[in-house]
Amino acid sequence: MKEFQLIEQFFTNRGQKRRDVTLGIGDDCALVQPCEGKVIAISCDTLVEGVHFFADMPAKALGYKSLAANLSDLAAMGAEPAWMTLALSLPDVDEKWLEQFSLGLFEAAEYYGVALIGGDTTRGPKCINITIHGQVPEKKALKRSGANIGDWVFVTGTLGDSALGLDILTGDKQVAEEDKAYLINRHYYPTPRVLAGHALRGLASSAIDLSDGLSSDLGHILKASDVGAVIELDSLPLSEQLTNNVDQQQALAYALTGGEDYELLFTVPESQRGAIATALLHAGVKFARIGQICAGDKLKFTLNGEPFKSEFKGFKHF
Amino acid sequence: MKEFQLIEQFFTNRGQKRRDVTLGIGDDCALVQPCEGKVIAISCDTLVEGVHFFADMPAKALGYKSLAANLSDLAAMGAEPAWMTLALSLPDVDEKWLEQFSLGLFEAAEYYGVALIGGDTTRGPKCINITIHGQVPEKKALKRSGANIGDWVFVTGTLGDSALGLDILTGDKQVAEEDKAYLINRHYYPTPRVLAGHALRGLASSAIDLSDGLSSDLGHILKASDVGAVIELDSLPLSEQLTNNVDQQQALAYALTGGEDYELLFTVPESQRGAIATALLHAGVKFARIGQICAGDKLKFTLNGEPFKSEFKGFKHF
Repeated sequence: MKEFQLIEQFFTNRGQKRRDVTLGIGDDCALVQPCEGKVIAISCDTLVEGVHFFADMPAKALGYKSLAANLSDLAAMGAEPAWMTLALSLPDVDEKWLEQFSLGLFEAAEYYGVALIGGDTTRGPKCINITIHGQVPEKKALKRSGANIGDWVFVTGTLGDSALGLDILTGDKQVAEEDKAYLINRHYYPTPRVLAGHALRGLASSAIDLSDGLSSDLGHILKASDVGAVIELDSLPLSEQLTNNVDQQQALAYALTGGEDYELLFTVPESQRGAIATALLHAGVKFARIGQICAGDKLKFTLNGEPFKSEFKGFKHF
Repeated sequence: MKEFQLIEQFFTNRGQKRRDVTLGIGDDCALVQPCEGKVIAISCDTLVEGVHFFADMPAKALGYKSLAANLSDLAAMGAEPAWMTLALSLPDVDEKWLEQFSLGLFEAAEYYGVALIGGDTTRGPKCINITIHGQVPEKKALKRSGANIGDWVFVTGTLGDSALGLDILTGDKQVAEEDKAYLINRHYYPTPRVLAGHALRGLASSAIDLSDGLSSDLGHILKASDVGAVIELDSLPLSEQLTNNVDQQQALAYALTGGEDYELLFTVPESQRGAIATALLHAGVKFARIGQICAGDKLKFTLNGEPFKSEFKGFKHF
């Protein structure tokens, strides 16, 4: 057990300090002072070795991505990151691994202003669990259920890069040497769209983050909002690193079903379209209009203005 | 993956509803409305099969105890239970196990008014992670750091029963047939002292819950408060089920180093002694004075008024 107390040294008194943490790590609970007039957004995510990540994933990337995936959930609600707890289960004490893992974790934590307020380190199969907390003004939170017929469908960033990066890592795909680093980096170091989520507060009618692929995640919005959508496949934002290396059919498959892009997908009433463009440009986030919400419960696609039959289904993690 | 979505049916729309949960399971985050003038107490705990519990632990007890251990942390801060997230990693989908586990979990959740607001179910080695949230008025939270020289040391309930229960389960100890069920029950179904914690708010100078055994946990208070203590071994509250089955030396070892009693250990200034007795009697919780805080940094013991040399160290989980 002493060995495991050593682990805690990698996490105690590190990273972002916050004034609203009135009692940090070291007591039975942490105490935090919530902001008046705001609600607290809470989400938790588990990553298990061999299920969500490969044993050889660089520890720094794993530390970063564990938090980034959680931050992406906050972003999708329009919440500001605040506090996290970390439960870490490890088969043994590997100081080098811990150093790199904590480096990646705290890099993301400091950048996004998240304080580590509690945790638990145990011996066991390698497994990372983070519970993240953010704050958002009452009634400004972005939900999945607010999309209305006629709303425009938007996404941030580009789609499918993370999934192609993964296929490079597994050896399933080969790409031009100059595109390799970019694509792998999108898989290891996705950008949680926290600023974009903030900018969309009170403007977007619904939002979700893309963890399972556009088809699947847009499906959640459609179901929660009881609407359908038409997506124009020629409008999907694709990186040149993606289009340089795969044909159109493959590119669409990556964009629609590739997981872990951690971009935001959101719907916008016509009346807010200008305000959102301004807010996102101000936040420095690229975004694209990719379709429109319609009546019904179906997700349909068009390509060059013609209906497109797609068999893109499911999603692809790790 | 479909199989794993089935699991979620065991947890969705079950258990305690709370008005302050403005958005429950089913979006990117849950949203909760904190109570004005209160701080939020947060703690997380992981239980790994083979490390924290045996593979044959009854699923209902495991569900109950997973939450009870977390509630005990809230109790030690004087916080009122509110919300939890559950991350469950399972090697396969065993409906009977899930039914019993969720039964035990929700039994505790409903009794203590905790709403399940989020979670994550993944395939992997059996592992349970709960992050618990409670609320406590600002400046009324019980910390480990407030013990002062002269304060009395108290505990709730009786000590060592859970550890003896464990030894019965492993076959390391045999006890009288009529005491067996009680002792095993104390190991499987510990009582988180939520009401006692509430009663101690603003009265006790420090508090901690007994998860690792009295010696070890009192040590945390002494360290955080920069004081020492003298414990009168003849004052330790022991159940007759314990004393019936082991000799005095063994009974003391169980009481001082046995883990997972989940009783509260707390310190009381002389000026609050009467108020605390009243508050705890009102809450229906048994308690005993077992010693006093003194200068220095040592934990000393007496037996029948004489100094007692003890080699009781460490603690004993699972």
